[in-house]
Amino acid sequence: MSEPFKIGLLGHGTVGAAFAALVQERAGNIERVTGRRPLVSGVLTRSRGDAAQIIEGADLVVEVMGGLDPARELVLSALRAGRPVVSANKQLISRHGPQLWDAAAAGGTQLRFEAAVAGVVPVIRVLSESLAGAHIERIHGIVNGTTNFILTQMAATGASYGDALAQAQQLGYAEADPTEDVTGLDAAAKMAILARLAFGSWVQVDDVVCDGIEDLTSADMAYAQEFGLGLKLLGTAERIGGALSVRVHPAFLYAGHPLASVSGPFNAVTIESPAITEITLSGPGAGGPQTASAILGDVVSVMTGERPMPAAGESLAIEKDVESAFYLHLEVADQPGVLAQVAERLGLQGVSVKSVIQEGLGDDARLVMVTHRILESRFFAAVALIGALDFMRAAPRAIRVIEEQFTA
Amino acid sequence: MSEPFKIGLLGHGTVGAAFAALVQERAGNIERVTGRRPLVSGVLTRSRGDAAQIIEGADLVVEVMGGLDPARELVLSALRAGRPVVSANKQLISRHGPQLWDAAAAGGTQLRFEAAVAGVVPVIRVLSESLAGAHIERIHGIVNGTTNFILTQMAATGASYGDALAQAQQLGYAEADPTEDVTGLDAAAKMAILARLAFGSWVQVDDVVCDGIEDLTSADMAYAQEFGLGLKLLGTAERIGGALSVRVHPAFLYAGHPLASVSGPFNAVTIESPAITEITLSGPGAGGPQTASAILGDVVSVMTGERPMPAAGESLAIEKDVESAFYLHLEVADQPGVLAQVAERLGLQGVSVKSVIQEGLGDDARLVMVTHRILESRFFAAVALIGALDFMRAAPRAIRVIEEQFTA
Repeated sequence: MSEPFKIGLLGHGTVGAAFAALVQERAGNIERVTGRRPLVSGVLTRSRGDAAQIIEGADLVVEVMGGLDPARELVLSALRAGRPVVSANKQLISRHGPQLWDAAAAGGTQLRFEAAVAGVVPVIRVLSESLAGAHIERIHGIVNGTTNFILTQMAATGASYGDALAQAQQLGYAEADPTEDVTGLDAAAKMAILARLAFGSWVQVDDVVCDGIEDLTSADMAYAQEFGLGLKLLGTAERIGGALSVRVHPAFLYAGHPLASVSGPFNAVTIESPAITEITLSGPGAGGPQTASAILGDVVSVMTGERPMPAAGESLAIEKDVESAFYLHLEVADQPGVLAQVAERLGLQGVSVKSVIQEGLGDDARLVMVTHRILESRFFAAVALIGALDFMRAAPRAIRVIEEQFTA
Repeated sequence: MSEPFKIGLLGHGTVGAAFAALVQERAGNIERVTGRRPLVSGVLTRSRGDAAQIIEGADLVVEVMGGLDPARELVLSALRAGRPVVSANKQLISRHGPQLWDAAAAGGTQLRFEAAVAGVVPVIRVLSESLAGAHIERIHGIVNGTTNFILTQMAATGASYGDALAQAQQLGYAEADPTEDVTGLDAAAKMAILARLAFGSWVQVDDVVCDGIEDLTSADMAYAQEFGLGLKLLGTAERIGGALSVRVHPAFLYAGHPLASVSGPFNAVTIESPAITEITLSGPGAGGPQTASAILGDVVSVMTGERPMPAAGESLAIEKDVESAFYLHLEVADQPGVLAQVAERLGLQGVSVKSVIQEGLGDDARLVMVTHRILESRFFAAVALIGALDFMRAAPRAIRVIEEQFTA
């Protein structure tokens, strides 16, 4: 009988416990395909375990502590000591990726992190292996299950943002402090990682243009349905000329878009490339068993001797001002000349209107429209002009609209 | 400068030409990530090239000839000579997989075949790498773009099968002789390959229960829409107790099923496992550039030193009689007692009806129903009894209905 394959487990929360159970359950099967039986040889919890000893005695280190500190130091020391590392830590990878890859190269070993983005949806492997030779134009992703659950509830039941969030918290889809999720920061970290893999260029999380879902209203959802649109928190990473744009914001999708039907706490990613048109990967977002399963896939890959793609060293400039179509929601006094004055401000900035709904509400009225594509800076300049008009009853509300299904 | 990575190309039809062009286009990028520049060093066409010489001089062999002969002998000799092979040949893999894997093991090399199933949809890699350690319960697949295009057209326009097929041929989605596609044989070969990867057990193509789409009518489509169902040519591979069932047949899906929205010439596969619930992968089916892109992904994986999972040697019995719900369409004389007699025959075999539509058409009538799940042998026994009743005006028409979205 050959030696067991020893796994040092750093962290023992929901994911760590699920991973330890899964290794035990699948050990026989993994031994059959790899020739070695995996075994959790040491566990570091908040209160117990000696990290240096666990790393030293392991053939591979799994990091599921989360956060930057002390995860960063421990992963670096494992990589430098030549131990392959599988991490589920999106903050760590998105903030310190280059340093970690350097440490892996120095230690002659590898770092894998499928579980850091989109749970079991195998987007990391597909980008870094299946599409390693491909020219990728764009990635769209629904990479945060919490916000997708909230938006699905708002659309299905007409619930307010607050009520849908409360329901997500009750069901365990949102944490007590949902800030990371609802502000889009969690999705931004994941999109930075995907951009790195798709375009070979390192993207700082702070370079990701980021807008959350906290200000969305049920009225936005209702109008959107009249226009045949569904609302998602959409991550985008795309080439714009020779530069790169990475952003996360609410966006309306037409019903035919492959991400439009992704509902509830699911994640999905669409990858567009001229050679392949597009592929879509979808599945449940992060949960204990799902994340554990994604980690185990990486562990088995290390055991069978697969080596991930070496990091390509391209460096693209970041482009923050991109073109988009927009939904624009204006609450105005119901008086003559309103539409003309709004249209004039839009025209000044070159914004062209595709469809419009005007609706009286007693003394007030709502003017809701969808525009054609326009550079975002010009659109927001027009919105600032409109916001200053004296008949406005509330701040204008703007949400991006994704028009096209394919680039190719 | 390091040596180029020499690729011997066996076959130069649509896919071969697209692959040669793609290698040239992406050579610089691939050199950047792998350290070596790929180069097509020899091409075997129908009329030119010396196969033995091409294989001998290559670092890797790409086989895109199709068919069994002489592809099988050439791939075997390449593998035995220690040359890694990337093949897009589903017939070859599904008929001779075990012999090819043995030859790869004997030659100390590897065989990859992502392009053989579902074009650029990376289902081979996800099954054999991401999910190598997972326990898979079931795979559902739309793995033939031609038939999915035809069914999508029939549903969207009310066209007959013949008209939709003619349109598919005009648009290049169906070949002049569409037999392999419309009989389900193409899909059966692909499902046999997926079953092997998901369950570790070798499945002969002839063990795949197979039904085509040639007998479907626009009336079936119209009734299905009344029941809220959409029609697909569905491949299934699943564990049934300790055995394995692999089948391809038309099936009605409820609107919520992840494959229900896959339309036109697209392919999609859903993989279900207790740990992950399910993931869905979708994208364009086989076309020259798409297949070439899938082949290139495999080539790059060989260049970076990845090794696919060794073949696991499980052997599951094949189960051909499984449970399913059914749509049943009966053309009958419009006379008293018809429904009672039909219901009696169903009851004799334990078939329970979920919903029924009865419709008069002059002297004739249609009785269309959806049943609850029942063992297929019992359902077809009931259908045989019903077919023998003297008021039947045409042979009974039965189509399976997929009820559940998840196993987990």
